[in-house]
Amino acid sequence: MEPVAVAVDAMGGDHAPAVVVKGVMDFLDNGGDTLVHLVGKRREIHREIRRLKAGDRVSGLRVVNARDHISMREQLLSYWRKRESTSIQKALDLVRQGKAAAMFSAGNTGAVMALAKTNLGMIEGIGRPALATLIPTSSGRTLIMDVGANVDSKPRHLVEFALMGKVYMQSVLGVENPRIALMSIGEEEGKGNELIKRTHAILKSMDINFVGNIEGRDAYLGKSDLIVTDGFTGNVTIKVAEGVVDVVMSMLKREIRTSLQSRLGLFLLKRSMKRLRRRLDYAETGGALLLGIKGVVVIGHGRSNAKAVNRAIELSVRMVRERVQERMAAEILCMQSFLEELSYA
Amino acid sequence: MEPVAVAVDAMGGDHAPAVVVKGVMDFLDNGGDTLVHLVGKRREIHREIRRLKAGDRVSGLRVVNARDHISMREQLLSYWRKRESTSIQKALDLVRQGKAAAMFSAGNTGAVMALAKTNLGMIEGIGRPALATLIPTSSGRTLIMDVGANVDSKPRHLVEFALMGKVYMQSVLGVENPRIALMSIGEEEGKGNELIKRTHAILKSMDINFVGNIEGRDAYLGKSDLIVTDGFTGNVTIKVAEGVVDVVMSMLKREIRTSLQSRLGLFLLKRSMKRLRRRLDYAETGGALLLGIKGVVVIGHGRSNAKAVNRAIELSVRMVRERVQERMAAEILCMQSFLEELSYA
Repeated sequence: MEPVAVAVDAMGGDHAPAVVVKGVMDFLDNGGDTLVHLVGKRREIHREIRRLKAGDRVSGLRVVNARDHISMREQLLSYWRKRESTSIQKALDLVRQGKAAAMFSAGNTGAVMALAKTNLGMIEGIGRPALATLIPTSSGRTLIMDVGANVDSKPRHLVEFALMGKVYMQSVLGVENPRIALMSIGEEEGKGNELIKRTHAILKSMDINFVGNIEGRDAYLGKSDLIVTDGFTGNVTIKVAEGVVDVVMSMLKREIRTSLQSRLGLFLLKRSMKRLRRRLDYAETGGALLLGIKGVVVIGHGRSNAKAVNRAIELSVRMVRERVQERMAAEILCMQSFLEELSYA
Repeated sequence: MEPVAVAVDAMGGDHAPAVVVKGVMDFLDNGGDTLVHLVGKRREIHREIRRLKAGDRVSGLRVVNARDHISMREQLLSYWRKRESTSIQKALDLVRQGKAAAMFSAGNTGAVMALAKTNLGMIEGIGRPALATLIPTSSGRTLIMDVGANVDSKPRHLVEFALMGKVYMQSVLGVENPRIALMSIGEEEGKGNELIKRTHAILKSMDINFVGNIEGRDAYLGKSDLIVTDGFTGNVTIKVAEGVVDVVMSMLKREIRTSLQSRLGLFLLKRSMKRLRRRLDYAETGGALLLGIKGVVVIGHGRSNAKAVNRAIELSVRMVRERVQERMAAEILCMQSFLEELSYA
């Protein structure tokens, strides 16, 4: 296999650069011939590398200095002037110049999206980038998109999400004919808001495996391989799920604390609960994919730990090797005349 | 206390009339001087009563015959012609005629909403009815509305939800100054779609305890007493939460099955898990409230069991006793000039 180079924003995330450097080091331990460009404040990065006593593992690593960084909640107006010297921009520069094939950041999602779009451009025929993420279901994994790149989407955007998500499921997860569902508040065709009703009609007319509307209750039961939704609803969905898992776990622990008998039960259950927590953990999936961009961009959760960083880099390498972005461009090209008939109104 | 009469649709729900009759009987066991009008196919209702060997408990009960019923998924066009002879309509007749002060149905939500609106009318100043329901949080309960009565809401609708929800939390749950939050995809004021941004600005200007946007993750942490959202997002929220609880529970059981040690743990944990399941169970809250209607209308989950029916009738009696509907009308009247400035555009 050809070596792949990935640009990693060392300064992104709540625990940067420590967990990012650790995640990169862990990745390089099994990273084959991948080259990682670690972009950020050189001195801080080197301090972390020393702390980890990484020694000879540093062979696949190149540290690229970036004077500035964009903080987690910084707005466009605040970072725009300094953007050229930030770690996110410098990582994207490497992709634009062809020195890296993919970029990962656990930093400010809005900034990564905006800068990726301006620097790398969009796949021809795609109106807006979208964030896709895998959710664990009772029978496996389902891709859900958009989970927050867009608000106020139009039917054509959702159709583009369906096409991009389909290619992802086929090429990265090997699902031959992905079942595509539309998130709504009733399974029947007429249920939902205006956006959903209009999108349903279009998806139904397409040559894809459209299985109709899906309700929130069924989203986590693995009844589809891809759930198409607007960014507002998708973001609420994944965050509600996160919150509910936390609440259920803490309630269960509290219930257990009330009886000695159950406390013994908890002790005996600990391993099972830990395994479950891991399955539901965002760190397992590594990150969200920014699809629609000309280039592979993976965005991590702000709370990413070293394992999540490690997984996200793995994911970005897989996306490069499977040529996901090229396949999406080809799929969109095939559908060009169909898409052109759909306006963004 | 004055006696309260409640009209109950015996034919509503997946397991009607059996569970409805059972729920009514259980309620009447402790129902004080409440009178229940049980509306539906007389013969079927009496058969269930006989099966339960209810005997002398039937004193607070009056069976009202209704020749037809509306099935769970029946659409307006299908039930409109027969509506006059259906159990939902006949139950609403009793409220309209003043023979009952509240109505409960676990039947077709859309039909109950449509018929309640045409029969009882709206509180003056309220544009559309809304469905409100209590969700369990780590620290208690939060009211969320709308959870599906409306799609494609406008800012003024959400403002009305905030006012109605506030009155409910004050008068039924005794929360003096309810913390009101707006569901969005970021806590900052500028985050969200157009509807949310515009609604945020209005709520902020009002003399209520508005605590700003809340994210899906925090909705279940009890950070607010009332969550305002449009019916599409609200419906997705409660259904995703339901689905996630089911998946977590089934995954936990599967994890446990894999080791003998944990199987012993499960045995010891059983009581705790059961208690937790109960806390998270929709049956505990009894049902959703249809607010904005001139009259008390409670709608149960289609999957309602006898306990849920029992709780829902309790809830409707409490709403009558606390004069929730009158207080809402008064609150809206106070805000009349403010609301008039907000159009439904």
